[in-house]
Amino acid sequence: MIEERNEKDDVQFDEARLREMLEAHDIDAFRDEFLELHPYDQATFYEKVEPDIRKIIYSFLSPTEMADIFEAIEIDDDEYTAYLAEMAPSYGAEMLSHMYADDAADVLNELDTEQRESYLGMMDEETAEEINELLSYDEYTAGSIMTTEYVAIPENSTVRSAMAILRKEAPDAETIYYIFVVDEAHRLTGVISLRDLIIADEDTLIRSIMNERVVMVHAGDDQEEVAQIMKDYNFLATPVIDDKGELLGIITVDDIIDVIDEEASEDYSKLAGISDMDKFDTTSLQAAKKRLPWLVILLFLGMLTANLMGQFEATLEQVALLAVFIPLISGTSGNSGTQALAVAIRGIATGDVEDHSKLKLLLREAGTGLMSGIVCGLIVIGIVYIWKQELILGMLVGAALCGSILVATVAGSFIPLLMHRLKIDPAVASGPFITTLNDITSILIYLGLATVFLSQIG
Amino acid sequence: MIEERNEKDDVQFDEARLREMLEAHDIDAFRDEFLELHPYDQATFYEKVEPDIRKIIYSFLSPTEMADIFEAIEIDDDEYTAYLAEMAPSYGAEMLSHMYADDAADVLNELDTEQRESYLGMMDEETAEEINELLSYDEYTAGSIMTTEYVAIPENSTVRSAMAILRKEAPDAETIYYIFVVDEAHRLTGVISLRDLIIADEDTLIRSIMNERVVMVHAGDDQEEVAQIMKDYNFLATPVIDDKGELLGIITVDDIIDVIDEEASEDYSKLAGISDMDKFDTTSLQAAKKRLPWLVILLFLGMLTANLMGQFEATLEQVALLAVFIPLISGTSGNSGTQALAVAIRGIATGDVEDHSKLKLLLREAGTGLMSGIVCGLIVIGIVYIWKQELILGMLVGAALCGSILVATVAGSFIPLLMHRLKIDPAVASGPFITTLNDITSILIYLGLATVFLSQIG
Repeated sequence: MIEERNEKDDVQFDEARLREMLEAHDIDAFRDEFLELHPYDQATFYEKVEPDIRKIIYSFLSPTEMADIFEAIEIDDDEYTAYLAEMAPSYGAEMLSHMYADDAADVLNELDTEQRESYLGMMDEETAEEINELLSYDEYTAGSIMTTEYVAIPENSTVRSAMAILRKEAPDAETIYYIFVVDEAHRLTGVISLRDLIIADEDTLIRSIMNERVVMVHAGDDQEEVAQIMKDYNFLATPVIDDKGELLGIITVDDIIDVIDEEASEDYSKLAGISDMDKFDTTSLQAAKKRLPWLVILLFLGMLTANLMGQFEATLEQVALLAVFIPLISGTSGNSGTQALAVAIRGIATGDVEDHSKLKLLLREAGTGLMSGIVCGLIVIGIVYIWKQELILGMLVGAALCGSILVATVAGSFIPLLMHRLKIDPAVASGPFITTLNDITSILIYLGLATVFLSQIG
Repeated sequence: MIEERNEKDDVQFDEARLREMLEAHDIDAFRDEFLELHPYDQATFYEKVEPDIRKIIYSFLSPTEMADIFEAIEIDDDEYTAYLAEMAPSYGAEMLSHMYADDAADVLNELDTEQRESYLGMMDEETAEEINELLSYDEYTAGSIMTTEYVAIPENSTVRSAMAILRKEAPDAETIYYIFVVDEAHRLTGVISLRDLIIADEDTLIRSIMNERVVMVHAGDDQEEVAQIMKDYNFLATPVIDDKGELLGIITVDDIIDVIDEEASEDYSKLAGISDMDKFDTTSLQAAKKRLPWLVILLFLGMLTANLMGQFEATLEQVALLAVFIPLISGTSGNSGTQALAVAIRGIATGDVEDHSKLKLLLREAGTGLMSGIVCGLIVIGIVYIWKQELILGMLVGAALCGSILVATVAGSFIPLLMHRLKIDPAVASGPFITTLNDITSILIYLGLATVFLSQIG
């Protein structure tokens, strides 16, 4: 019978029953029930139970079975160490060697050098070498997310021999839906999908039906670029080559989904000024620790604003009414700066920015800022006149608002573009940072104008 | 020979040469060169050229060939009408009927009712019905993104007969890597991957090797939920059923990538206060039109702040120095509110929020806010004392800052959670909106406290 997905907690298993079986040490019943589950559900259960229960799981499952679970768990990077420490070292090493090489490398990357070497030393040489190779690529590159478990066939194979290779490799390969064709030097020369393979005549030569226009990436390419290509071309996998054109590995669509998700979450966190998005199950203290660094940095920047305003204390003393409009001006220009920033950062992330002239872009933003500034400025003049019957004050506030919006909009796109050009991570140009900068410029414009025209509005 | 991806513009074709061939009306050369390209590259070229050139393309390519291109183009929804209008209606209808039903439905969704009916009327009845079915699902549901081109086989098939069905359906199906098993009433009873199929013995019954624990979704389910499931389980496709358990269609991973991308971009835009992210090729006027509505709404809200501050004019007149710290207090509490908001909205988007008690969450945020508030408050007291030698003023600013951060943090998570509970789109709780609200509360707290203690700091 088909079990429908449990709407409430998104899982397909009976947690209490599995727990009972483990506690009663009923190995057969547990294996019957548990191994039927999808690895994601197995992993969800595994993450939910306590270390003591997990130790029983290790004694019930082989390292190979455990490898499937470990590939599917979704935990914070620093938790891997704790999970591995629960296992006997030899069991852990055996499990790691049965994982897909890219996943094993991800786990080992979180351990300290000594531990990593110790696990690698316990594996068979070929596997250890494969994983070591993957560990050598920089984070966020194509090489760091590729896997080496792909199916490659020689150019001069027939469809029949290709299918035979495929059947043999199917249990281990991460995908068998794309088969990569290589020459004697293991240089990538073509690709053929399993779809094309199964409808082709068995005696056909692979060379005659393979697709020679392979879209491929280099091991050092940025993972975001790879994601963009796979999204555009709707690929299930993309081959990764080295400088000599030799096939090193493949990147599969499930890893790309994780990249897209990760990068989106990163852009989002930047805009909100959080270094690292905290999950709902962290404590207040953990959350405060993650958020405070930004808050304190911005607080010091805010003190600059206060210091700047202090310079205008005399002006403010003369016309206290001036202070009333400060939050309005700095808030509105902050908002328009954040809008411009979001558009720029998103454009940089999607690569859209490469197709356009930066100068034209800044001019576009200047135009947008000017139009928005004039509209908002006129509205404010109207409101202040109706509310306070103060035309001069209204014009001062309106002019300052218009100028501040213009500056904020241009700065909101200029700063991230400049950082991108200088190859600095635009994380520094986060939303709150830009907003605080805009506070400073808007106050300077407003109180500067006010001081100059003070005689007329006093 | 293998052509490497052109790093600069991400395409694999020679635009100038293709243009020349079209202008010279050299149909054979163009078809030879163009039909070799990946549909994404074909679509990129097609989007780049002018309408006159596109008309030549229509005369060179069959509607079926054009269908592949139309599936791959990435244009704004409202541009489809213009492209279709360039084609003869019969050519357009024929092209639409050769597209995957879900893509055709997406295009038809953008036309007005009359045009849509006209195209559907020109298609063969079966195709028109299939597309009409898809058009009936609400936007953002599983039904609206599913396709009906899947491979289904009866339970009592053998592997041999399943492979025969597969070979026949391969050219039309959107994916052949998952085969769905149905009973006589077309109810979904299992799934088998092509990977398992090709390694199985030819005489094996499908029923005995299929996976019966199918993770499936209902046509009315939210597309974000579907994306989460496919991401968790690493599926390449997920079946969609109706209330009777009958198989309606499948959702493939490429559509899910688009959903993930779209939703991330939506969350991001919300945080930045832009209704609709503008691309880099829009004009200043278009960009201003998209951004101004939010700016103006927030401007009016900002006038409330100004009005509120106006109530404290007397206090500000007495101690002008008070005004100096307003941007600092409202800025810092705005920042911490945005952080809390981002965490809450992201938690709602990923469904993480369903697994946790809302009250516990708010208490967590209150704890985080209190800790952050105390730390920032103490820092400010220290700075003001060192800078101005004003202990009482420093304590006033510190206390106001601490209170404002606490309120902002709780509000930043309470408001989106409340909206989610009331099933209101949390778009209203965008970053700038929360920030403006926080301006109001922080000023109320600060100037309220100041007025009460005025005698001591005068």
